[in-house]
Amino acid sequence: MEQPRPRSRGSTAPASSSTHKPEVVIGIDPSLRGTGFGVIHIEHPHPRALVFDTIKCPAKWPKSRCLVKTADTLKRVIHEYKPTVCVIEAIFYAQNKQTALLMGEARGVCLLAAAEAGLDIYEFSPRKVKRAVVGYGAAQKQAVAKMVRELLCLDKVPAADAADALALAIAFAGQLKTSMPDISNQTRI
Amino acid sequence: MEQPRPRSRGSTAPASSSTHKPEVVIGIDPSLRGTGFGVIHIEHPHPRALVFDTIKCPAKWPKSRCLVKTADTLKRVIHEYKPTVCVIEAIFYAQNKQTALLMGEARGVCLLAAAEAGLDIYEFSPRKVKRAVVGYGAAQKQAVAKMVRELLCLDKVPAADAADALALAIAFAGQLKTSMPDISNQTRI
Repeated sequence: MEQPRPRSRGSTAPASSSTHKPEVVIGIDPSLRGTGFGVIHIEHPHPRALVFDTIKCPAKWPKSRCLVKTADTLKRVIHEYKPTVCVIEAIFYAQNKQTALLMGEARGVCLLAAAEAGLDIYEFSPRKVKRAVVGYGAAQKQAVAKMVRELLCLDKVPAADAADALALAIAFAGQLKTSMPDISNQTRI
Repeated sequence: MEQPRPRSRGSTAPASSSTHKPEVVIGIDPSLRGTGFGVIHIEHPHPRALVFDTIKCPAKWPKSRCLVKTADTLKRVIHEYKPTVCVIEAIFYAQNKQTALLMGEARGVCLLAAAEAGLDIYEFSPRKVKRAVVGYGAAQKQAVAKMVRELLCLDKVPAADAADALALAIAFAGQLKTSMPDISNQTRI
């Protein structure tokens, strides 16, 4: 699990000096064998990454074991970093119904971990996240990961699943400043 | 939650007099707003229902609340009745990918509750269950419910979701007698 030491950036104010109430957000990109997660602290002018990683489950593990590891890891992260908001990827594309079912199983477990801990849960489409982070709804995954590195001042580009999760949290942080009613009315689940 | 008082049937031996090791099985028919569950005790010559019900979640509840109630209820039932085996419905039919995703979310939460408690989990197709319980793979739901009532000596026909869950457990009990290797090789998840 990565607990990043951000590159120095003179303009980043420390959390304690922020005039806004600090807020911790977890982004989750669910998948049976590689759920990405990323926790950020909303600071001004830029959010700060607290932790991010991919929950890897080997192909030989039975599905039930993957679901338990995913739930356990998310519960531990939520307990430790105490986010109050969870942003999860809305899934609109699946190859077929069987794939959608599998994706749903992983997603259900992630939603449960967040809901049991009392987090407010929001759902963002990948297009919305890309537009918020890169400025272009059809951006490539690598472009998202690079922009996540830039926005969070990370030493290196995060792995794809973790980057997607961090991007969800960043997109929430961005919307929080501009259009909170839009979020709360349309995408809370 | 129904804790059935079975109709008397002279030939039903009490659990303690069985020469076989007793086994408790939970069947689960997952759904976002109405997960059915049924716990049976495998006795000879007939299994006995310990508890069955439908976990109802009103349409106005957000999805996350439904998932939490479903998980909480199943955890409580598993803790109280201590099944060692879970049989869950395999989903092959969904109207579309979005429905498959929703069904998957409920299913993931049910699988997690069983896996966290260390149960062995098996997956049966509806066709297989109907063939095992009614003798006909394309049987109507009502026919399954009536046969479940008959096989478990219940006072009345159980509600559809609970009946489907009990049917899953009964189908497992039936296969246990005849073809255990078939179960463990092909459908354990």
